[in-house]
Amino acid sequence: MSIKFEKIKTDGDARVGRIITNRGEIHTPVFMPVGTNATVKAMSPDEMKDLGAEVLLANTYHLYLRPGHEVIKHVGGLHKFMNWSGPILTDSGGFQVFSLTPLRKIRDNGVEFRSHIDGSLHFLTPELVMEIQNALDSDIAMVFDECTPYPADREYTLNSLKLTTDWARRCLRVKNQGQALFGIVQGGMYKDLRRQSVEEIIEMDFDGYAIGGLSVGEPKELMYEIINFTTPLLPEDKPRYLMGVGDLLDVLEAVAAGIDMFDCVMPTRNARNGTLFTSQGRISIKREEFKRDPEPLDPECECYTCRNYSRAFLRHLFMCKEILSMRLNTIHNLHFYFNFFRQMRDAIKKNEFEEFRKRMTPILKNNFNET
Amino acid sequence: MSIKFEKIKTDGDARVGRIITNRGEIHTPVFMPVGTNATVKAMSPDEMKDLGAEVLLANTYHLYLRPGHEVIKHVGGLHKFMNWSGPILTDSGGFQVFSLTPLRKIRDNGVEFRSHIDGSLHFLTPELVMEIQNALDSDIAMVFDECTPYPADREYTLNSLKLTTDWARRCLRVKNQGQALFGIVQGGMYKDLRRQSVEEIIEMDFDGYAIGGLSVGEPKELMYEIINFTTPLLPEDKPRYLMGVGDLLDVLEAVAAGIDMFDCVMPTRNARNGTLFTSQGRISIKREEFKRDPEPLDPECECYTCRNYSRAFLRHLFMCKEILSMRLNTIHNLHFYFNFFRQMRDAIKKNEFEEFRKRMTPILKNNFNET
Repeated sequence: MSIKFEKIKTDGDARVGRIITNRGEIHTPVFMPVGTNATVKAMSPDEMKDLGAEVLLANTYHLYLRPGHEVIKHVGGLHKFMNWSGPILTDSGGFQVFSLTPLRKIRDNGVEFRSHIDGSLHFLTPELVMEIQNALDSDIAMVFDECTPYPADREYTLNSLKLTTDWARRCLRVKNQGQALFGIVQGGMYKDLRRQSVEEIIEMDFDGYAIGGLSVGEPKELMYEIINFTTPLLPEDKPRYLMGVGDLLDVLEAVAAGIDMFDCVMPTRNARNGTLFTSQGRISIKREEFKRDPEPLDPECECYTCRNYSRAFLRHLFMCKEILSMRLNTIHNLHFYFNFFRQMRDAIKKNEFEEFRKRMTPILKNNFNET
Repeated sequence: MSIKFEKIKTDGDARVGRIITNRGEIHTPVFMPVGTNATVKAMSPDEMKDLGAEVLLANTYHLYLRPGHEVIKHVGGLHKFMNWSGPILTDSGGFQVFSLTPLRKIRDNGVEFRSHIDGSLHFLTPELVMEIQNALDSDIAMVFDECTPYPADREYTLNSLKLTTDWARRCLRVKNQGQALFGIVQGGMYKDLRRQSVEEIIEMDFDGYAIGGLSVGEPKELMYEIINFTTPLLPEDKPRYLMGVGDLLDVLEAVAAGIDMFDCVMPTRNARNGTLFTSQGRISIKREEFKRDPEPLDPECECYTCRNYSRAFLRHLFMCKEILSMRLNTIHNLHFYFNFFRQMRDAIKKNEFEEFRKRMTPILKNNFNET
């Protein structure tokens, strides 16, 4: 087995644990920053390490198209390519194929699609997706799945679920040595189909289990309902990963239900757009009131940005569209996320997760930009 | 006096020296990276320090328009604003007013112009330029000058020279306490006018002297002629600054003539465009041949980029327009520049400057992109 999961402590259904990989330990619940093109946007890998990142996510779809997985294999694998020695999880490309590409055609055998970069024609199969992830040499691979859209009727959702199960079986058959493989649960917004998907997927015995097909446009209440229904059905002794969900209010709900792993572009993308997370809520750095403000962005924050720069400077950099603006903002938002996850783990260890959640919820809901 | 200049060694007319400021020593010949908007594009101030930058240049014109000098003064001056504790030289805005702005009108009293950002109307005078530089609290200020364009007839050039002399006198009259002030020599491509400008400017006794109005479109031979004619006319015991010239072939010519200080956007702008300086000449990182190349950009280089990343990765980042591409390329090019200047200083100390120049010239002329 290429990874080992240890549950350390539970608080209700919330859990603290660790995933031991050949490239380092991951403390859960964990936030995995997204490094789409083999780099977390605006960051260097050294900065990611300093910030406390324990695992990065890279996108199989993007790296397959550019520079090509055989290029990355040729130069020694993804870790060497991007100069990151810690664990890497690669997604399967399923989400991107279904959301980014024009003219996709789903066949039983795989998916035909055109590249969003140059329009070239490609055909991804479960076997090819495993071959790509083998070439990348990531520590955790994901099975190829169809991310069921929202809304989708029962018939579409059932067919999508069956395809995902079939593809999961094919991925498992060609599982790469030394690489963990996670199964993905689909089933849309239908609880019985979610249960069916869980049963079919866990029967195959993967190294971990992901819930896919959420945060795809459905109302929050519905998402929470599916999270709370599906998570307890997953084995307790394996890592549980909620794909693509990263709004911290959603994270609190999911951790309470027993989820261990998250990924999302929210902190990094928001940073580049000038939206920053603080101990008082969310703010937009471009607001006129910050023009002459000598205070740090968040006086309670200890990140590099808050220790060294004023709101006035951060606003100025943003208005000038300086690259340093995106860098400093990204450092701050990622620090906020890592700190939030550390606090969650501490709270679970102390049996205080519900108190933590109650304390953080109004702050997370506070949006200065709307006041 | 706010700065002190010491000549340490000469080799022909080339000289090694140091400028002692309240914020640190500057070893000359020195390259001053350009931090237009209070940041060297793509870099953090800590990275600039690690690279060996001893002085940064900031643009008075840009900072006057955005965020405004009174904002920077309010938050504690430019050093604190941008988190750079070393020396800063601010230009006077003359070059930008004449090159960037639409609808400028030169009057005896100053220059009326419209902002290149929002079209707003402004009037810069020598006194205001000194007030702005006082608010910024830079270590070395420049007098307000008219940068004579090329080509310009004798009459225009003479009038421009007279205006520059008049404005220099007015700047000196309101010289800021604790801030060095450099005079600027104009005179276009007319040797007798260059001599006249030198005589008028050095008579006023500035802390250093700059040659302006070069690298404005004239042929290289003509630029070299004016550099070689003008430089020896400047006092030996003061720093000599050749404004806006940074092509390293030109730098070699100017250092041979006795110039001490340089600024230029060339290493940083080229980096962002993917053009990189190496020990074998200039290359464009986007070339197809680098797609699978596992070697560092320049095997002889010891910069962070070359120690940690392959050409294949650098090409990939550039093709993806990733921010990390601009960062890693800028680190490399600035390292190349600082290393080049260190080698020049070492060569002068060993009386080997001409040998160094002969060795470097073919490398600097080598451009792989044209082969």
